[in-house]
Amino acid sequence: MTQAWTLKSRPMGTPTGDNFELVTLPLDAIGPGMVRIANRWLSVDPYMRGRMNDVKSYTPPFALGEPMQGGAVGEIIESAAEGHAIGDMVLHMAGWRDEVVIPANQAQKLPALGVPPQAFLGQMGMPGMTAYFGLLEVASAKPGDVVFVSAAAGAVGSTVVQIAKARGMTVIGSAGGEDKCAWVKSLGADAVIDYKAEGSLLKKLAAAAPNGIDVYFDNVGGEHLDAALGLANERARFAICGMIDMYNTGAPTKLRFAARIIGARIRIQGFIVSDYMARASEFYADMAGWLQSGKLTREETVHEGIGSVPDAFIGLFSGGNKGKMLVKL
Amino acid sequence: MTQAWTLKSRPMGTPTGDNFELVTLPLDAIGPGMVRIANRWLSVDPYMRGRMNDVKSYTPPFALGEPMQGGAVGEIIESAAEGHAIGDMVLHMAGWRDEVVIPANQAQKLPALGVPPQAFLGQMGMPGMTAYFGLLEVASAKPGDVVFVSAAAGAVGSTVVQIAKARGMTVIGSAGGEDKCAWVKSLGADAVIDYKAEGSLLKKLAAAAPNGIDVYFDNVGGEHLDAALGLANERARFAICGMIDMYNTGAPTKLRFAARIIGARIRIQGFIVSDYMARASEFYADMAGWLQSGKLTREETVHEGIGSVPDAFIGLFSGGNKGKMLVKL
Repeated sequence: MTQAWTLKSRPMGTPTGDNFELVTLPLDAIGPGMVRIANRWLSVDPYMRGRMNDVKSYTPPFALGEPMQGGAVGEIIESAAEGHAIGDMVLHMAGWRDEVVIPANQAQKLPALGVPPQAFLGQMGMPGMTAYFGLLEVASAKPGDVVFVSAAAGAVGSTVVQIAKARGMTVIGSAGGEDKCAWVKSLGADAVIDYKAEGSLLKKLAAAAPNGIDVYFDNVGGEHLDAALGLANERARFAICGMIDMYNTGAPTKLRFAARIIGARIRIQGFIVSDYMARASEFYADMAGWLQSGKLTREETVHEGIGSVPDAFIGLFSGGNKGKMLVKL
Repeated sequence: MTQAWTLKSRPMGTPTGDNFELVTLPLDAIGPGMVRIANRWLSVDPYMRGRMNDVKSYTPPFALGEPMQGGAVGEIIESAAEGHAIGDMVLHMAGWRDEVVIPANQAQKLPALGVPPQAFLGQMGMPGMTAYFGLLEVASAKPGDVVFVSAAAGAVGSTVVQIAKARGMTVIGSAGGEDKCAWVKSLGADAVIDYKAEGSLLKKLAAAAPNGIDVYFDNVGGEHLDAALGLANERARFAICGMIDMYNTGAPTKLRFAARIIGARIRIQGFIVSDYMARASEFYADMAGWLQSGKLTREETVHEGIGSVPDAFIGLFSGGNKGKMLVKL
C-alpha cells in the first residue's frame, strides 16, 4: 500500500488544503525491470501550481483524483532490475507519496558528489540546473555583468546568486524580509533588496544598481519584471524562469517600462530546464568544482511527514521557504 | 532663409498643433564641403514622438525652440562639395523644414533602383530596413513560419507583409478599418484582422491563426502584444519594433499571457534599425530583386506643404495613414 496525495479539486487562486486528498492505494506488483522505492524526501516546486490548472502547457495537467507527480529521492527496498540494488538511493518523479513501484529506468542513481541525497532535489538537481542554464545560457551572463535575481532566497534564486559570484559577476538579489535578505547577502550578493519593506521596488533597485543591470533572472514576474525593464542597460538579457506573482491570481502583468525593450534592445527569453537535460554533465562538472572550492552553500526548509506536503507546497506562495522547500518522510 | 518646425512645448499625451511652431530662420552660409538642399519630401514617423519627451533614450530628445530633425529627401541647389552636383537628389536627417545647409557627408545620394525619390523615406528607406532586419534577423523568420504583424497597413508593417510572402511565410496582418484591411489583403496577406471591428483581438487572432503563430512583428504593443503571447507557438520569436499604443498615453502594458513566455520558450527582442545600417547593402540587394519580380507594392499618404507637417505627424496616432505618411513640399 502507498499513501498518496491526489488533486481533489482544481484551486481557484491560491491553493488550500481542501484541494488535496491523501488516499491509500495498493501498489503494483514488481514486474521484471522494476523497483520498489520508499521515498525519503519529496520536492514541492512552484511550477506544480501550473499543472493544477486544466490547461495545455509544457507539462500535462494533473488529473483529478489521481496521485500527483513531482521530484522525489527514495531508497530502493525491492528490486527486479539488474544494476539496481536494495539500499540504492535514487531520484525520480513519483513524488507526493510515500512508496512507489516504477520501471528502474525512471529512477536515476544519485551522482557521487559528497552531498546529502536531498540536495539532488534542490541545488544539485532541477532547481540548480535551472539556475545554471538560465543564467549562463539563456541570459548569456558573463563575468563583469550586473545581475538582478528575484526570489533570491529561493532554491533557484539562491543558486543563481552563488553561480554568478563564482563567475565574477555583480549580483543584486531581491527577497522578502530581513532574515532572508541577510542570508542572501551571506551568499555573496553585492546588494539585497527587501521587496516587502516600504518604498517602491523601482527606487530600491535604482539605488542598488546605480549603473543599471545587464541581466535579469526572473522568478516572480509582475512588479519585479517591470522594475528590471526600467533599469535594464542596453542589450540586457532577461531569463524568464517563473512568474510566481501571477500563478495564483491570474492578474495581468502591468508593465510601465515595456517600451524600453525597443530602445535598450532588451532580449527576453523564456525557458524550461528540461530542455537542457542532455547537458546535465556540464552542470555537474561545474557544480562539483564550486562545491570543492567552497563556493556553494545550501539551505533547506523542511516539513516532516507525508501529511505535511500540501502545507509545504502552499507555503511556497507566501514566501515560507528559505532555500529549497522539502518534505522529509 | 528657411521655414522650420520647432518644438514649442512637450506634448502631454497625444500631440496637438499647439506643441509646434513654424519659424523662419536664416540659413548658414555654405562653407567648403557643404551643400544647400531644398527639401522635396519630409518624413513623419512614430518614433519621433519619443524624442518629444525629455527623457534619455536611444536618440536624444528634441530641444525646445530648436528645429526638429527627421528623414527628408531633397535636391541640392548649391554645392561646395566635390562629387555633389546641383540637381542631385539626396537623403538626410534635416527634415521638418524646407531648406537646409549641411555637410555633404550627411547627405546620401539615392541608390538607382528605379523608384520615385520619396520611396527612400519609406519602403526603400528606414521603414523598409526596419521591416527587413526586424523580420529576418531579429525574429529569425524562416519560410513556412506563421507571421503575425500589427499595424500591417503602415509603412513598416506593409513591407513586413510583402517580405514575408516573398520568403514563403504565412502572414496574418492587423489593421484598422475595412479599407486598410482590404489593402493589406491585396499585398498578399493570408488573413487580415480588423482590430477596430467588434470582438476581442485574441479571438480574431485565434480564428486567423488556427495553428498558432511562430513570429510576431510588433509595431503597437498593448493588446496586440498580449494576444500574440496568448497564441504563440513553442519557440516563437517576437521582434519588438514599436509600441505606438503607449507612446502617448504612457498607460502600462497589461499582459494576461505573460507566463506563456516560460512554457512556450518565447524570445522577445527589441531592436532599432540603426544597428543594422552597416548591412544596408543586403537590404538593397534583396529589395531590388523583389522590386524587379513585382513582389513589392508601395502606398503613400501625402500631405502637401510645409504647413501640414504637424497634422501629418499627429495623424500617425489615429491611423490616418495607409502606407508611408509623407509631406510633399
